[in-house]
Amino acid sequence: MNTEQSERFLRACRREPVDRTPIWLMRQAGRYLPEYRKLRERYQMLELIRQPELAVEITLQPLRRFDLDAAIIFSDILPPLESMGVELKFVAGDGPVIPQPVRNRHDIRGLAQPEAEEIAPYTQKAIEMAARELAGRLPLIGFAGGPFTLAGYLTEGLSSRDFAHARAMMYQDPDAWHALMDKLSTLVGNYMQAQVRAGAQALQLFDSWVGTLGPDDYVEYVLPYSRRCIDMARSTGVPVIHFSTGTAGMLELIQAAGSDVIGLDWRVGLSQARARLGDGVALQGNLDPMALTAPRRLLRERAASILRQAGGKPGHIFNLGHGVLKETPIDQVEDLVEFVHQESERR
Amino acid sequence: MNTEQSERFLRACRREPVDRTPIWLMRQAGRYLPEYRKLRERYQMLELIRQPELAVEITLQPLRRFDLDAAIIFSDILPPLESMGVELKFVAGDGPVIPQPVRNRHDIRGLAQPEAEEIAPYTQKAIEMAARELAGRLPLIGFAGGPFTLAGYLTEGLSSRDFAHARAMMYQDPDAWHALMDKLSTLVGNYMQAQVRAGAQALQLFDSWVGTLGPDDYVEYVLPYSRRCIDMARSTGVPVIHFSTGTAGMLELIQAAGSDVIGLDWRVGLSQARARLGDGVALQGNLDPMALTAPRRLLRERAASILRQAGGKPGHIFNLGHGVLKETPIDQVEDLVEFVHQESERR
Repeated sequence: MNTEQSERFLRACRREPVDRTPIWLMRQAGRYLPEYRKLRERYQMLELIRQPELAVEITLQPLRRFDLDAAIIFSDILPPLESMGVELKFVAGDGPVIPQPVRNRHDIRGLAQPEAEEIAPYTQKAIEMAARELAGRLPLIGFAGGPFTLAGYLTEGLSSRDFAHARAMMYQDPDAWHALMDKLSTLVGNYMQAQVRAGAQALQLFDSWVGTLGPDDYVEYVLPYSRRCIDMARSTGVPVIHFSTGTAGMLELIQAAGSDVIGLDWRVGLSQARARLGDGVALQGNLDPMALTAPRRLLRERAASILRQAGGKPGHIFNLGHGVLKETPIDQVEDLVEFVHQESERR
Repeated sequence: MNTEQSERFLRACRREPVDRTPIWLMRQAGRYLPEYRKLRERYQMLELIRQPELAVEITLQPLRRFDLDAAIIFSDILPPLESMGVELKFVAGDGPVIPQPVRNRHDIRGLAQPEAEEIAPYTQKAIEMAARELAGRLPLIGFAGGPFTLAGYLTEGLSSRDFAHARAMMYQDPDAWHALMDKLSTLVGNYMQAQVRAGAQALQLFDSWVGTLGPDDYVEYVLPYSRRCIDMARSTGVPVIHFSTGTAGMLELIQAAGSDVIGLDWRVGLSQARARLGDGVALQGNLDPMALTAPRRLLRERAASILRQAGGKPGHIFNLGHGVLKETPIDQVEDLVEFVHQESERR
């Protein structure tokens, strides 16, 4: 079989046969690329996101170097919160900061519920431009943060190990929590639909921090809202990838949220995930990002192990288990992309 | 059946029937107790550990308040490293710091391999005194850090999210890594044996950070050494608990390390763990520590869910999925201990 490159990733999302395993990498546009660092020297993070020409340029950077099977629009999960009236700052070294966190019912009532077109409109514009630029040669992935992850940032005001404020709200004032999650999942669902209208051909929900919860909390306080985001996104007809980290103990619940593809982190074997989840869902992942800093032999061994676990069956998209690390040597990424294509074709 | 309280925990470790589910709590002696905070105001952390009378006093504090089924000696996982010649500081706010981290073969060769009696002798003394004080009324648990967790601290010099130095050493200089793990697992094995000679009736290996690794790295760089520590500890005849966090994706590999009991964190259902691991191992856990800050009704609901998942079968020790948080109200701990005893007796 000879699959057009434009179709390889999308077919794998739908669990259709492909000629080679498609590969793209989370944070494939990022600090490990000198051309990205050069732009970051001149512009703040939020400037790069808000100026569609710059966001498109960054989106395309890794595609000029590597034979990747999908593009992902350059943006961040937090800017959509600004359309709710939330102030957002990126502080050098500290990452994103929300100077006035949302901690109670009053704060939650104060959050605007914007129209779809008002949510990070610069990213919607960038998707339009990037899709035109790619002209169907490669699919473009849009994305949004998961409602728990957004609620975690909103309530803490910054990144956190344990999201104590979010969890205190769940337990102490569940009505407030549910009101917040209701607003956030509507925001995320609307935003993902708008991205498809702008030209995105697939969507990824980044519920990066949901692995801080145990299964019971996930079921009660998060799952209904993740499912709602995914339902709204899927209603557009494009495939939806649900990525999370630290959720190896509750992959079945992640599956219950209903995505087409489940994005695995590196801390669970792909074969175990497949055994537990069955064949009714595609899997994306899950090379340890650190493996890209290992000697070439070990890098290939680990990549081959993932392909072996995927077993050449339909429904696997190769990716890392988290974003590319800034220390990653470029030639290692190049080798990985070639190796995955060649090795999977050979099988 | 009426089990003596002195036997309840040890019988459960051996998967023998008991009248009620035994319960103890990781960090049951800690900052949530005013009597502990009072001592911490007067003494540095390392002073409390190094003065056996103080360590014994802290060990006994929670037993005066709660009907717990086991004591655990008050200490820390890092002091044994001092007996290798490593300098260790506890910096207020930052936790433990190793000013001169171990980064290469030269550093590793410089690490002493102490005799068992030289390893944290003050903790060995404290175990002797505490065991005498408990006089067989309650079993006393000794503990040590797992070799990966110790190597992580040693190479980073402080706590870390990703242990990049440890992982760089694994990949770039595997011989150095294996030499380091060899020394550390000998240290840990000897130290755990010495604790049993001093009077410990059970041992817990805290491999708290091993969940940062994927399964392939765990098998290649850690499992043989964890197994060796556990083998050495079990050769004394006391039961060994192997606790780790973030390892829901590789519980089967944790089991392969050979402990009598597997300590689960809160991010995997106990019923799932039981289904995957079979009946040949006891399970400890796994209430989310945050649940102790939730309203009473929810706390009990979550505790009942864990007992239900354990199904009244032999081989369950109730515990948290991680240490007691400093914000935990004392009356919640009291309620939990009573509830677990009553509810499990009723079943």
